[in-house]
Amino acid sequence: MSVVTSADERVDAATGAGGSVGASKWPRYLQAEYGFSNHWHPVLFSHEVAEDDFATVTLLGRRILLTRSDGQVRAIADRCAHRGVKFSAQPLCFAKGTVSCWYHGWTYRLEDGELCDVLTSPNSPIIGQVSVPVYPVTERQGLVFVFVGDAEPHDLSHDVPPGFLDSDTHCLGIRRTVASNWRLGVENGFDTTHIFMHRNSPLVQQNNLALPFGFVPADRGAMSVHSEGWPKGVVDNLAQNYQPVFEARLGGEPVLRCELTGDEKLVAAQVSVWLPGVLKVDPFPDPSLIQYEFYVPITATSHEYFQVLQRRVRSADDIASYKSEFESKWRDLALHGFNDDDVWAREAQEEFYRDHDGWANEHLFPPDMCITKWRQLASNHASGIAAP
Amino acid sequence: MSVVTSADERVDAATGAGGSVGASKWPRYLQAEYGFSNHWHPVLFSHEVAEDDFATVTLLGRRILLTRSDGQVRAIADRCAHRGVKFSAQPLCFAKGTVSCWYHGWTYRLEDGELCDVLTSPNSPIIGQVSVPVYPVTERQGLVFVFVGDAEPHDLSHDVPPGFLDSDTHCLGIRRTVASNWRLGVENGFDTTHIFMHRNSPLVQQNNLALPFGFVPADRGAMSVHSEGWPKGVVDNLAQNYQPVFEARLGGEPVLRCELTGDEKLVAAQVSVWLPGVLKVDPFPDPSLIQYEFYVPITATSHEYFQVLQRRVRSADDIASYKSEFESKWRDLALHGFNDDDVWAREAQEEFYRDHDGWANEHLFPPDMCITKWRQLASNHASGIAAP
Amino acid sequence: MSVVTSADERVDAATGAGGSVGASKWPRYLQAEYGFSNHWHPVLFSHEVAEDDFATVTLLGRRILLTRSDGQVRAIADRCAHRGVKFSAQPLCFAKGTVSCWYHGWTYRLEDGELCDVLTSPNSPIIGQVSVPVYPVTERQGLVFVFVGDAEPHDLSHDVPPGFLDSDTHCLGIRRTVASNWRLGVENGFDTTHIFMHRNSPLVQQNNLALPFGFVPADRGAMSVHSEGWPKGVVDNLAQNYQPVFEARLGGEPVLRCELTGDEKLVAAQVSVWLPGVLKVDPFPDPSLIQYEFYVPITATSHEYFQVLQRRVRSADDIASYKSEFESKWRDLALHGFNDDDVWAREAQEEFYRDHDGWANEHLFPPDMCITKWRQLASNHASGIAAP
Repeated sequence: MSVVTSADERVDAATGAGGSVGASKWPRYLQAEYGFSNHWHPVLFSHEVAEDDFATVTLLGRRILLTRSDGQVRAIADRCAHRGVKFSAQPLCFAKGTVSCWYHGWTYRLEDGELCDVLTSPNSPIIGQVSVPVYPVTERQGLVFVFVGDAEPHDLSHDVPPGFLDSDTHCLGIRRTVASNWRLGVENGFDTTHIFMHRNSPLVQQNNLALPFGFVPADRGAMSVHSEGWPKGVVDNLAQNYQPVFEARLGGEPVLRCELTGDEKLVAAQVSVWLPGVLKVDPFPDPSLIQYEFYVPITATSHEYFQVLQRRVRSADDIASYKSEFESKWRDLALHGFNDDDVWAREAQEEFYRDHDGWANEHLFPPDMCITKWRQLASNHASGIAAP
Repeated sequence: MSVVTSADERVDAATGAGGSVGASKWPRYLQAEYGFSNHWHPVLFSHEVAEDDFATVTLLGRRILLTRSDGQVRAIADRCAHRGVKFSAQPLCFAKGTVSCWYHGWTYRLEDGELCDVLTSPNSPIIGQVSVPVYPVTERQGLVFVFVGDAEPHDLSHDVPPGFLDSDTHCLGIRRTVASNWRLGVENGFDTTHIFMHRNSPLVQQNNLALPFGFVPADRGAMSVHSEGWPKGVVDNLAQNYQPVFEARLGGEPVLRCELTGDEKLVAAQVSVWLPGVLKVDPFPDPSLIQYEFYVPITATSHEYFQVLQRRVRSADDIASYKSEFESKWRDLALHGFNDDDVWAREAQEEFYRDHDGWANEHLFPPDMCITKWRQLASNHASGIAAP
Repeated sequence: MSVVTSADERVDAATGAGGSVGASKWPRYLQAEYGFSNHWHPVLFSHEVAEDDFATVTLLGRRILLTRSDGQVRAIADRCAHRGVKFSAQPLCFAKGTVSCWYHGWTYRLEDGELCDVLTSPNSPIIGQVSVPVYPVTERQGLVFVFVGDAEPHDLSHDVPPGFLDSDTHCLGIRRTVASNWRLGVENGFDTTHIFMHRNSPLVQQNNLALPFGFVPADRGAMSVHSEGWPKGVVDNLAQNYQPVFEARLGGEPVLRCELTGDEKLVAAQVSVWLPGVLKVDPFPDPSLIQYEFYVPITATSHEYFQVLQRRVRSADDIASYKSEFESKWRDLALHGFNDDDVWAREAQEEFYRDHDGWANEHLFPPDMCITKWRQLASNHASGIAAP
């Protein structure tokens, strides 16, 4: 762990962290339009793919067919080697552990992707001569993770925030497709001052949160960069690193004020972001919950946004009670009511970063030091860059 | 006619007929994204353009205005030479044998495309100085054919399958636009093993057809390539060249079986494909009918699909009775019910061939030898390649 | 003012004014896909932006936020310097003369575009270090004009037709977006023979106008090119320069005839076009009115079409009566009923000029001499070419 004094960063950012300077500081991050390969990414919730069901996802630009066979989820490229059609257009399974193409009956083993039979031409010499890519799959905390890349898959714990796999916890969440590059997702989530846009969110009032308009970096503060071992991430201790702003001024005159009673709940004491692109907000949206957000690259202009709330549980009753609370309160008030603003903000940035070379033309300022730390870590340590 | 032993082809295809190998084997076919020029192509049914009516089509990427004047269908490029607008936006005819542009009244002779008058500026010096392209037109068997190219048009019989123009026959059909390159149309139609996807078609049951799941190339079989004289085509005698597959297996276990009673009608004894891209299935969908399919290039990503059923007739009564049967039975059960699957399959291939260089990345197998024979014939003998 | 004999032009146009010849004759006009910079362009009607209201427009490819503050309309680039989002997605004003970004509270002075405060981070060192472009604004005749460019703005009178700013007049009008390049707007309006397409317009009958089918250039005629001083434009005296065509013939036979009683109102005695792209038709659509049309570049493929009718007035009663007449008659019958044809014609040309290099492939004829004069004037004298 290296400790970086925020005072250093302030100067750096104020003199223009973006542009050609930025390009030279985080080159691999700029290349990672389609995300980081050789990492685990969630693609579905476990309950979305039942035994013998099929589902399709696009991950790092690759279209993948998923199916569960004898309990194990399998992932195979969604394209027949013969004439290139999608299996998913009419997925067929005539025997466990296989998928057959609807067009000419070419049949592949899900385990290794090899062409093992052709229904329309028995004993064809092509059998065993071609295959389609398959992808490692694992399931934890109700999520299906897929590994895309050319390396041997490492343990899932490398690619999720600390605490996410804790066994005495239960995770519930939602997912949706957002029309922006995945990096705008990570950066919006980790950005300390974007909370300005949440100031009127019903969550703040209804859950009695103390949410400032923004933050001034404090000299006493420090940001932890975890670049040794796995997972690798950047941890921002909001409560320590910044001075919260509860009164906003223009030309010295107050124009916005947040009236505090002093009994507000304290949340988001620590916000961190981890490779390959996962946010942890601890606690949030309530002192009893931790929020994780996965910004999973689909294409260059879209990502799948997984929002997961984790609670410590000790019994089946705890889980049942948490599920009920999640459905009645957190799904609508927090994951939608609050985070819908974030979805909107990410999509609002997409045009600039895509069409106007935002990576070179943005102007960052001192509170964005958390973002520049993340970009540097990701550029230096991501296991691979996904090809388009 | 050259005769090719299927055994040779099997090895060839199994070792990978596609990719750079394929590119060098049928180079002009790969260039023919917009189809083959200097050939006749059907564009409409005759009844679709009545005297003085206008119609527009796009053929080999060219937008063409059609009109019937004194019984003769005329075809002229649908673009005024002056400011480039489409005549068809508001087609005007103030005198037989002419078309006037709605914008400034420039008026062209349909026979030769020459600017013969300007309604807004009589005796203008521009008259006789500019012209727009016109295209030869002929009508046979209820279809309007247009010739695009720079050569003198040859006889229509060069560009339709043998038997199509037989005088004691009557043709009825439909047409529709399909969102795939025209070559995927030809290849899907001529492909022997794609019939796997038709296995549940209502036509098979209701017309009591013997339709196998696929075919194994048989050593005794032979495919005829007609490359001398016109028309030029490839003839595949299904009944002779292949072993039909009525039981499909995976890992040795039967997974699909077609129960035959032995009294099924035999159809598709011979399937052939002809330049510039016409299929003949003899007989189909009934022993009393022959099906012709024209896959007419519109743009690089769409083609007009003409489906025509031909029956031998001896009298006006025969024709009336055939029309009635066509309307009540064959249109819905065969041309839609059965061939809708083919339309779907062609569109399902388009993405791969367009966006992922399918021509280089496909993997063909021995039953696809009919396709490779067609590609070679077309590449060697097509009269011209349409420019985009 | 230079006087050009139309006889010279006739030969020139008949031998092909377009193509590479044209390209060398008006090179800067061909470059001006996004319009002419360093000129005033109307963007809104004054009543469309009230005090503290926000509006957005796109002018010469630049998205601009407009707001009225203490009576003065201000124009600022609609993009925050920080992360590139549009202010207009959720425009915020917490103090007169400023705009705040909804995302992180960056706040800019509307007068000079400078970052003057950051609501989320008081006293940030970035304050005063960045700015966004602002644009000069002026209002006259009920229109808001904006100046885009790098030059000092000149007087508005340079960029509107003579008479437009006359103080004893009142202007009323409408605007709409047209899906064509702005140059097709100017040229369609100034084109003498396009009136062929208006021959069946209800305005002609209902307002008893003498509208010929077209014009033959007359040797006695002359066209005035105003290239000294400002405004600069081309004036075509229709009544003097051309022989009107009231009977159209094909092959010598009359096919269209306009029956005149002799008591028709005479309109459009003089049509002129002025930099940066404004038409004046005097009088039109009635002897009591002058029509101005501004074809304001939005993108390369769209323009904002301002149609303004001007009447001499002497009192508030005159204005009230004109407003009532405008609403009940001229808006629907003339600005829509008649000019909708023009909108349609411009959009009908867009494909040819955009996708088929119409500027090189068009064929002009003698009556188009007004267009070639305009192109030359614009190419030689426009103050600047807008970059994409």
